Amino acid sequence: MYPSYDVIVIGGGHAGCEAAHAAATLGSSVLLITMNMQTIAQMSCNPAMGGVAKGQIVREIDALGGMSGIVTDKSMIQFRMLNRSKGPAMWSPRAQSDRMVFAQEWRDTLEANLNVDIWQEMATEIVMEGDKITGVKTSLGVVFNTKSVVLTNGTFLNGLIHIGEKQFGGGRSGEHAAKGLTEQLVGLGFEAGRMKTGTPPRVDGRSLNWEKMQEQAGDENPEKFSYSDTTTTLTKQRSCFITYTSNAVHDVLKTGFDRSPMFNGRIQGLGPRYCPSIEDKINRFAERDRHQIFVEPEGWNTCEMYINGFSTSLPEDVQYKALRKIEGFENAKMFRPGYAIEYDFFPPTQLKSTLETKLVENLYFAGQINGTTGYEEAASQGLMAGINAHNKIKEKEAFILKRSEAYIGVLIDDLINKGTDEPYRMFTSRAEYRILLRQDNADIRLTQLGYDLGLASQDRFNAVEKKKKEIDNVVETLKETSIKVNHANPLLNERELQPLSQGIKANQFIKRPHVDINLTMEANPSLKEAFNGYGEKALEEAEILLKYENYIEKEQKLAEKLTTLESYKIPEGFDFKSITALSSESREKMTKVAPLTLGQASRISGVTPADVTILMVYLDKQKV
Amino acid sequence: MYPSYDVIVIGGGHAGCEAAHAAATLGSSVLLITMNMQTIAQMSCNPAMGGVAKGQIVREIDALGGMSGIVTDKSMIQFRMLNRSKGPAMWSPRAQSDRMVFAQEWRDTLEANLNVDIWQEMATEIVMEGDKITGVKTSLGVVFNTKSVVLTNGTFLNGLIHIGEKQFGGGRSGEHAAKGLTEQLVGLGFEAGRMKTGTPPRVDGRSLNWEKMQEQAGDENPEKFSYSDTTTTLTKQRSCFITYTSNAVHDVLKTGFDRSPMFNGRIQGLGPRYCPSIEDKINRFAERDRHQIFVEPEGWNTCEMYINGFSTSLPEDVQYKALRKIEGFENAKMFRPGYAIEYDFFPPTQLKSTLETKLVENLYFAGQINGTTGYEEAASQGLMAGINAHNKIKEKEAFILKRSEAYIGVLIDDLINKGTDEPYRMFTSRAEYRILLRQDNADIRLTQLGYDLGLASQDRFNAVEKKKKEIDNVVETLKETSIKVNHANPLLNERELQPLSQGIKANQFIKRPHVDINLTMEANPSLKEAFNGYGEKALEEAEILLKYENYIEKEQKLAEKLTTLESYKIPEGFDFKSITALSSESREKMTKVAPLTLGQASRISGVTPADVTILMVYLDKQKV
Ligand SMILES: Cc1cc2nc3c(=O)[nH]c(=O)nc-3n(C[C@H](O)[C@H](O)[C@H](O)COP(=O)(O)OP(=O)(O)OC[C@H]3O[C@@H](n4cnc5c(N)ncnc54)[C@H](O)[C@@H]3O)c2cc1C
Ligand SMILES: Cc1cc2nc3c(=O)[nH]c(=O)nc-3n(C[C@H](O)[C@H](O)[C@H](O)COP(=O)(O)OP(=O)(O)OC[C@H]3O[C@@H](n4cnc5c(N)ncnc54)[C@H](O)[C@@H]3O)c2cc1C
Repeated sequence: MYPSYDVIVIGGGHAGCEAAHAAATLGSSVLLITMNMQTIAQMSCNPAMGGVAKGQIVREIDALGGMSGIVTDKSMIQFRMLNRSKGPAMWSPRAQSDRMVFAQEWRDTLEANLNVDIWQEMATEIVMEGDKITGVKTSLGVVFNTKSVVLTNGTFLNGLIHIGEKQFGGGRSGEHAAKGLTEQLVGLGFEAGRMKTGTPPRVDGRSLNWEKMQEQAGDENPEKFSYSDTTTTLTKQRSCFITYTSNAVHDVLKTGFDRSPMFNGRIQGLGPRYCPSIEDKINRFAERDRHQIFVEPEGWNTCEMYINGFSTSLPEDVQYKALRKIEGFENAKMFRPGYAIEYDFFPPTQLKSTLETKLVENLYFAGQINGTTGYEEAASQGLMAGINAHNKIKEKEAFILKRSEAYIGVLIDDLINKGTDEPYRMFTSRAEYRILLRQDNADIRLTQLGYDLGLASQDRFNAVEKKKKEIDNVVETLKETSIKVNHANPLLNERELQPLSQGIKANQFIKRPHVDINLTMEANPSLKEAFNGYGEKALEEAEILLKYENYIEKEQKLAEKLTTLESYKIPEGFDFKSITALSSESREKMTKVAPLTLGQASRISGVTPADVTILMVYLDKQKV
Repeated sequence: MYPSYDVIVIGGGHAGCEAAHAAATLGSSVLLITMNMQTIAQMSCNPAMGGVAKGQIVREIDALGGMSGIVTDKSMIQFRMLNRSKGPAMWSPRAQSDRMVFAQEWRDTLEANLNVDIWQEMATEIVMEGDKITGVKTSLGVVFNTKSVVLTNGTFLNGLIHIGEKQFGGGRSGEHAAKGLTEQLVGLGFEAGRMKTGTPPRVDGRSLNWEKMQEQAGDENPEKFSYSDTTTTLTKQRSCFITYTSNAVHDVLKTGFDRSPMFNGRIQGLGPRYCPSIEDKINRFAERDRHQIFVEPEGWNTCEMYINGFSTSLPEDVQYKALRKIEGFENAKMFRPGYAIEYDFFPPTQLKSTLETKLVENLYFAGQINGTTGYEEAASQGLMAGINAHNKIKEKEAFILKRSEAYIGVLIDDLINKGTDEPYRMFTSRAEYRILLRQDNADIRLTQLGYDLGLASQDRFNAVEKKKKEIDNVVETLKETSIKVNHANPLLNERELQPLSQGIKANQFIKRPHVDINLTMEANPSLKEAFNGYGEKALEEAEILLKYENYIEKEQKLAEKLTTLESYKIPEGFDFKSITALSSESREKMTKVAPLTLGQASRISGVTPADVTILMVYLDKQKV
């Protein structure tokens, strides 16, 4: 009776929104089933997007034609480029958003997409005929037919909230937990596990003493996330503030340890090592007598403050007393205590690199349900699952990003091959090719791919083509242009930089420390003329390419090697057990993961280079 | 450990927001405890404020210094003055709001009030020492101390949602029901009852055929609710649309009757007779072959539509099929089905006219918990409870509005004396003095009172004083000014109105049908000069006062009579049983209600004029 869909996305979080938007934009008819239309794209924890390695992911989503970058730009209240003083591989954009506006913008985005329908209710069952997906059933018993399903349930599956010794069922504070789906999936043969994460108390900014804290303003010339010109940079920003815990704070917190669900074993799930609670921090780093706290506003006008760095599930009275020992928090009033939440996840080694499950065709998992943490990680998976769900039912090629192409490639490759024992978040250290995977060049890396898919617009494509041409011209021109001693040295002296002893080519000049493209152009004004009208970003990009030429080349070579391994395809259903030359451990692991390329096989944890060689020889033989 | 408060308000709905704002503005320290800070001032049902009799209440709230009018002005997307073609007692302002903006504005308003703290959690218990309130306890076990408590739980107390044969616990779709409080109050001796209300399905505007419906635009020159100049009128508006059900629609709906919770007795609570579900309507008015449906947008940008007139708790498949039979809805897609909700209320005869409970000192009930329905009814009770909670602990006089002063007076007087068997909503017919209680003069009626309380600002007070002076001048001047035949008749002829046979005074001229203040000024241009610079509203007001002079005077006399009855105070704790001359029924009812004036006694249902006379004689004797 109800309409039939190409793709049903369950869950309107960051993963679900990107999945629905991508599949629908590509032309699939999509139904987004979510518990509450008013919490679509709700930021469960702090209202910020990006940060180290995560900012790169947002740029990648944007370049491919996803919406997280645009939505962030439209809702941000502060923008900072982190790690500017380090190499460009580390530069990471981060924005503080207005929580309400962020959700509103996503909702508007989905409503503007005529292929997206929405149904507000809890999905409780995937309807199957034999081993084929035919629909989704809701708590009311409504059945919607579909060809494929993307599950993005976030922290909601059998969610259990802990504060001190109290426990409540719930998917987030004040919201219902999702029931039924885990049990059904386990019944179908899926392995499920339990993880946990936490959130800090929210505090009334009107009760804080800002004078005692250190102001952290946004960048003076803020950038933005999206490469598209549909958004603009901020002209007004809101500041965050920095303060610290102290031994006095820690002492109060410790009085709650015996009533803590983390320490008395009441929480079973695995927590994020890299985003620990404050009680974890003072426990694990007992030697440190203070930890940094960021006080971050939740929006343009609200006095609600997010206390970043103070995630906790201690009893609320302990939270309150400890908060008030923090510098500037002497009279702090809480709006609500922090809490921890435990939820079901599905070890992601059960997925193909398209995020389709190996067990059930046309069923995709994306986001926190795969054991990740973070909006950016979730959103990027949603995007990939949405694209692949669409491509598969339309009989198009699978869309897979290589580790050398994108952090998103690293993320998914890590998940499906290594799985994860704790909530997985992205770090630059997870990427072998991080000098290639920069925030500044995601458009150059990925827009073409997004455009070929039909997701990135013609405008975006044209803009990247133009930028590429300009970069090439700049690089070529610098190689051919000389910098003369008598022109350059006065400029270098002014800046107390090492003078030239003889004339050099501009592409060498720019490699010198503290020399940038602007100084180079000043040192030979003919360049200024040559690059007249060029985009600022193209000039910057050329500078990076030249300054880091050696690193980039090295990584590119490495990446090509990997691509060779990657091009060794392993046939689906390949019987790894039959290769007796492999160690029995490797045989088992390969059988479980079922890698589809030699590259993928090489990244399975425990698989040795020797195993890979054996496999390669075997595959070569078969080919003959 | 946590701060102590003068007033704790439980529930951040319309009643709770006004209560918290009023008590805090008057100087009390207030804590608002509400389940979810993101649903503060959520409009549970349609996103509209005002309407017949309700619009008058919003004006009254505004004149007293409450915020509902201002919040509505700041969030409205359409404004209409209903019943303009009828007499001014019937004129009723109504605004369609953007649901999200409405909630945001209320939240900003509360945050801007430094005396309002907020705690996000479920309140589960009122803490008492003996028969004295000392605090409120939450689900986590946190106790906040307080001198008084205002309960505004809305539809949340043991809320139970029905859709067809399905039932869920919940305070609103997707939200938790409130547990514990009813049971505690019943334990303390309160009588509790059960009521129900319903809401229509929400529909995707993108799936509707607007061509087949009738557009209903906002007023051409829209007004606004607030008398204050902090808000402005709309320059751009969004339209609503009108369509109709048909026999085909009704036939489909009937197929669900056997699975309807309303008809098969699964719902026990009393429903609103005046705001019936569509199944009620086709059942009760079997002879009608169509009912009007208003399709109302939920905000500036959203495609979510509220289907006003189609409230239902039939099974969702029946809702869906029936919707699609409506003209313009042939391809309608639902976002979510309609539902009915049952909840606990406390018969309001248990309250004093300050909304304090008779049983527990410093405990106040306001809003839907008192058996009313509607945002305006709730908000006005919240305002009154907030004011009285403050006044009582600060040992100031109780603040009570007379039936002749305000619809709010009528509302509370009805509730506490007559109680209610079904969800109570305001109608003009409930007011004896409705020509006095107009939407245009609420400022003149009430601003002084709000100002004396300390709630309405000096600016408002000055504006009203100025307006009053202008009105008086206009009225006096018109009485003294003549309209000449040769001036007036050309104007009257032009408009095809009855010409004058002889000159008359301007105050008589303006009483003629279709003659208004503007025409009167044209008929004697000296008036234009005299009223130069006067407010438009003052001129309008003077016109109404003169045009309806006789009616107004008649009602004023009646009101004065009542005031006489009202001035007969009955001492608190008076023993009605001792007056054996009263019928035993009257003695019992009076004992239960414990009226504090003869007027109040006269309005108890079942009390006869004879009983009142007996009581008056008895009281007179006592005085001597
Ligand atoms: C308390 C808390 C603390 C966190 N702390 C951090 C942190 O410190 N750092 C960090 O990086 N990340 C943190 N996160 C994680 C971050 O919020 C998530 O990684 C991210 O939101 C995941 O996105 P998602 O789309 O996978 O799921 P979510 O954002 O959780 O969205 C899931 C959506 O699915 C809906 N849904 C679920 N089940 C159903 C169903 N059966 N039917 C219909 N709808 C359903 C829900 O209503 C919701 O809209 C925290 C999350 C929580 C709850
Ligand atoms: C489904 C539905 C349909 C309706 N239909 C109509 C209609 O057709 N016409 C009409 O005029 N009116 C209708 N209403 C009624 C209208 O919404 C209410 O009259 C109005 O909202 C009542 O305001 P309130 O402030 O009393 O309560 P609500 O607006 O219900 O607010 C109650 C608040 O209290 C909070 N709360 C409750 N218990 C606790 C607790 N223990 N601890 C902390 N917080 C608590 C809730 O979270 C909520 O914020 C409908 C309501 C519902 C739910």
